[in-house]
Amino acid sequence: MTNTDLTTVGGLTQALEAGNRRALARVISHIENNTDLALPLLAALYPRSGKAHIIGVTGAPGTGKSTLVNQLAGVYRQRNLTVGVIAIDPTSPFSGGALLGDRVRMRDLAGDPGVFIRSMATRGSLGGLAQATADVIMVLDAAGFDRIIIETVGVGQSEVEIASAAYTTLVVEAPGMGDEVQAIKAGILEIADIFAVNKADREGVDRTVMALKMMLNLGVPEKFQVMHHGRMLPVNLPETENLPQGWTPPVLKTVAISGEGAEELTEAIENHRLYLEQSGGRILRDRLRAATELRMIMRDYLLETLLARTDAAVLEEMVEAVARREIDPYTAVRHLVNEKAV
Amino acid sequence: MTNTDLTTVGGLTQALEAGNRRALARVISHIENNTDLALPLLAALYPRSGKAHIIGVTGAPGTGKSTLVNQLAGVYRQRNLTVGVIAIDPTSPFSGGALLGDRVRMRDLAGDPGVFIRSMATRGSLGGLAQATADVIMVLDAAGFDRIIIETVGVGQSEVEIASAAYTTLVVEAPGMGDEVQAIKAGILEIADIFAVNKADREGVDRTVMALKMMLNLGVPEKFQVMHHGRMLPVNLPETENLPQGWTPPVLKTVAISGEGAEELTEAIENHRLYLEQSGGRILRDRLRAATELRMIMRDYLLETLLARTDAAVLEEMVEAVARREIDPYTAVRHLVNEKAV
Repeated sequence: MTNTDLTTVGGLTQALEAGNRRALARVISHIENNTDLALPLLAALYPRSGKAHIIGVTGAPGTGKSTLVNQLAGVYRQRNLTVGVIAIDPTSPFSGGALLGDRVRMRDLAGDPGVFIRSMATRGSLGGLAQATADVIMVLDAAGFDRIIIETVGVGQSEVEIASAAYTTLVVEAPGMGDEVQAIKAGILEIADIFAVNKADREGVDRTVMALKMMLNLGVPEKFQVMHHGRMLPVNLPETENLPQGWTPPVLKTVAISGEGAEELTEAIENHRLYLEQSGGRILRDRLRAATELRMIMRDYLLETLLARTDAAVLEEMVEAVARREIDPYTAVRHLVNEKAV
Repeated sequence: MTNTDLTTVGGLTQALEAGNRRALARVISHIENNTDLALPLLAALYPRSGKAHIIGVTGAPGTGKSTLVNQLAGVYRQRNLTVGVIAIDPTSPFSGGALLGDRVRMRDLAGDPGVFIRSMATRGSLGGLAQATADVIMVLDAAGFDRIIIETVGVGQSEVEIASAAYTTLVVEAPGMGDEVQAIKAGILEIADIFAVNKADREGVDRTVMALKMMLNLGVPEKFQVMHHGRMLPVNLPETENLPQGWTPPVLKTVAISGEGAEELTEAIENHRLYLEQSGGRILRDRLRAATELRMIMRDYLLETLLARTDAAVLEEMVEAVARREIDPYTAVRHLVNEKAV
């Protein structure tokens, strides 16, 4: 066999599936830069995806979630599973935002061909990040990675959207991070499949574990409802009551810096993976995600199509009129759309 | 004059301008519930807006920003200015998420007719929150509130979008909140017009102030560039270099719980307001916001229009096909859109 041609869709797809890391990096670049090859590549790779287990890891800055991701990846590697890491957290060492100590800690992953790390920018056009992340996840999936970990920060709306690409969402807390009750209230309870209380060698760890367990006992019935909202439940999709409700999020203690608890945490993730497969939850999550993705892509496609057809001068005039409060933006949009007879 | 009719656009608009709080609440309900009156109301009120100064307040949970908002509103009331507060932070006492102590602290505002407080849900459809917030700000503006304060949490993409509705963005930090450098790195530097280091009676306050000032000295040149990204800079809008660059964000110490520093903070906000007016920055921000709003509304309008025309069964079939990886979502969208010949 001759050298694969990395300038064509066929060549790139073939090389990607053969485990060629250079092909993988190129495919991601095509998609991130939205080149002419981006759509054909996505179309070619999509049917080859759907095998990986996707794990979302989220939590406030300072909880040590990057170090924990590092440990999880290490445990998976010991089990001979390959791992892709996507870092969206701007404070993560994976995305280049953290301190020297963190960078040193992730060095052991960097040289391993069974690990692929990619960071993604936290800024960009509205909704664009969630879609770009979904695309890169799909590419890593098609490239054959067994486990894909997405690291995000906080509980903002867009973070929840990104996390909704995951089958298993791991929420990392730490003892003494301000007011635990506040942190828990901030929407995190509804998206968590597993809690890790990291830095468990610190004072106050049992209080945090207790607080989480208490909240879980109070809050479980609403879990899937709120999750649906975050995932843009479309018409005619399975109702809340059809989703499997047999999973109670475990609360585990970890010390990421020493690796303590990493095995147990990996086990919990694998248990959740099996639970989703056996309960039909994985299929339901796939449908929810497909519906959300379709809407996101449709919305952006329609906007792009209309803007491409609209005279830039007309658009700028309308922006000026809205800025000067001569016309409200809703009426302005109707004018712009109807002029183009969409 | 007879009782105003609060069931018509004309009656509601008139009553709103006369300071009728019941009319204000009704208008907001119409908009939040997207009733038949929503668009006519927005169209009628939009030309009457544009006078208020809009202040975004953001920061991590536990920094005490709600208490600070409370103090700011108090200072403005002493100056005989009316204040509208919109709370999007799920941990804010204004939005019902906080502890009893916080609720007690906000009681002094609750009875004052010169203050209007509204909380908004942190979940909902993609991008919907940012637009709904922009609409409610506009309504409060048209209702004659002199200052409008929007309280959001964190640094997620959607929070930045919501904050982009503000003319002045205040970032609240607190000493000893984990790693200061991380908190600062997380995109906050680019959106801040003013920093408040709250809980300034605590240890470590000078270290936090120093860290912020150092970062500011390093990072100022990029300030407006990154801001533009967050605000979806459209074609043909003023370039970065035309934006006024003469403002260096001040770093102030406050103790919200005692009111210490609230006067000085209010003064800093008013200085920034004057700066924006004199430098032309306010007009530029209005244009940026108008352009962003037009795109957001256009995108949602186009999606709604297409979905309304699409057969639910066809849509569901497509969702199923994507979920089963038989077709990629991009190709699926092109099929759906072209079938409808948009």
